[in-house]
Amino acid sequence: MSFHATILTLYPEMFPGMLDFSLAGKAREAGRWSLDTVQVRDFASDKHRTVDDTPAGGGAGMVMRADILSQALDAVAPPEDPRPRLLMSPRGRPLTQKRVRALADGPGAVILCGRFEGVDQRLIEARALEEVSIGDYILSGGEPAALVLLDAVIRLLPGVMGNQHSGTEESFEGGLLEHPQYTRPQLFEERAIPEVLLSGNHARIAAWRRAEAEKLTRERRPDLWAAYAIEKNGK
Amino acid sequence: MSFHATILTLYPEMFPGMLDFSLAGKAREAGRWSLDTVQVRDFASDKHRTVDDTPAGGGAGMVMRADILSQALDAVAPPEDPRPRLLMSPRGRPLTQKRVRALADGPGAVILCGRFEGVDQRLIEARALEEVSIGDYILSGGEPAALVLLDAVIRLLPGVMGNQHSGTEESFEGGLLEHPQYTRPQLFEERAIPEVLLSGNHARIAAWRRAEAEKLTRERRPDLWAAYAIEKNGK
Repeated sequence: MSFHATILTLYPEMFPGMLDFSLAGKAREAGRWSLDTVQVRDFASDKHRTVDDTPAGGGAGMVMRADILSQALDAVAPPEDPRPRLLMSPRGRPLTQKRVRALADGPGAVILCGRFEGVDQRLIEARALEEVSIGDYILSGGEPAALVLLDAVIRLLPGVMGNQHSGTEESFEGGLLEHPQYTRPQLFEERAIPEVLLSGNHARIAAWRRAEAEKLTRERRPDLWAAYAIEKNGK
Repeated sequence: MSFHATILTLYPEMFPGMLDFSLAGKAREAGRWSLDTVQVRDFASDKHRTVDDTPAGGGAGMVMRADILSQALDAVAPPEDPRPRLLMSPRGRPLTQKRVRALADGPGAVILCGRFEGVDQRLIEARALEEVSIGDYILSGGEPAALVLLDAVIRLLPGVMGNQHSGTEESFEGGLLEHPQYTRPQLFEERAIPEVLLSGNHARIAAWRRAEAEKLTRERRPDLWAAYAIEKNGK
């Protein structure tokens, strides 16, 4: 069975969006993953198809209603559906490559795209939704986040990248940012490719790349560097 | 002058994608932002329209060539173009709401979408590209990241959200995850809205929300919590 995503959204027309092209698009045509969308408004009960209401206790914006969302969720993902139920939200745990890999190893995902000020907390608790954040910035809604999550997952599905080996990924999963890359021409605007990379000495090249990756990580991502240093010393 | 984005990509068909709908779509129709895309392959010089080559020093994958990318970049963004030049890359500095806000306050952005193992380091240095990462996971390319960045920026442009006030954003920029939200119905599957939110006592409600936001941030995001605690004690 291939990876199947179900998206609950107020904007089904945003999907598959960019996932219709390139690697993901070809993989979908080849049946390696599939997607369906559910318009949450179809589960509203009034003629205006309202799905939100004002926040209890006051405050700005609107909150998505637990009773309507639960009906939408239960209709497409009954309790026996083994797929994880995700809620894209800036309150979520930050998405990691490890979580992406685990999702790619599974049967798919049911993804609820939050909008407005968020969804009623009782839905999150009653349906044990996993809140996922793709980063510390605010989006127009959960849809862009869902597209990014799916893009990250799809490239890891069996057969999608073929035997393409990704050095970036290995570096990243090893806890470091990737070393600088160079390619032809040998001279670009009087800038030369570092000599070591042309030496043919594989051990020197590997050592140089490691040192560059460590330097970049230390300078740019003290958080990753701290985690990497602990890991390294622990071994 | 409204915000103008120029995207350099191998997949111009991915744009505007999801940005054609909802808030961003309406804002584009209203002229609040605009977008053009540049097919990087148009700047290749061979009949196969090659833009990449093997990494100097060996290794997996392909690297995008500095000479071709610089021609594409210089053609659409000459030195006098005041817009920041961004490269979407997992090696970049993590995108923050603060950076999003600064971009929204500016004239636009020139965004290069990396693919494969990345771009030649000499291009990054010669054109002073700002490397931006949207999170610690690997995407198929820079395009999904560019769409997310634009989505985050567009909602902050003048007139896009109107007077909509976002509590989520305020909470987030204040360094905390947002408190739980509730709305009607008062009872959902035997779960009640917390009594305090129905009390009408604004001071109690504000105190409860603050405590919940602090608790959630402490549990879920020790990194944000540490930064928040330092900030708070420093005042």
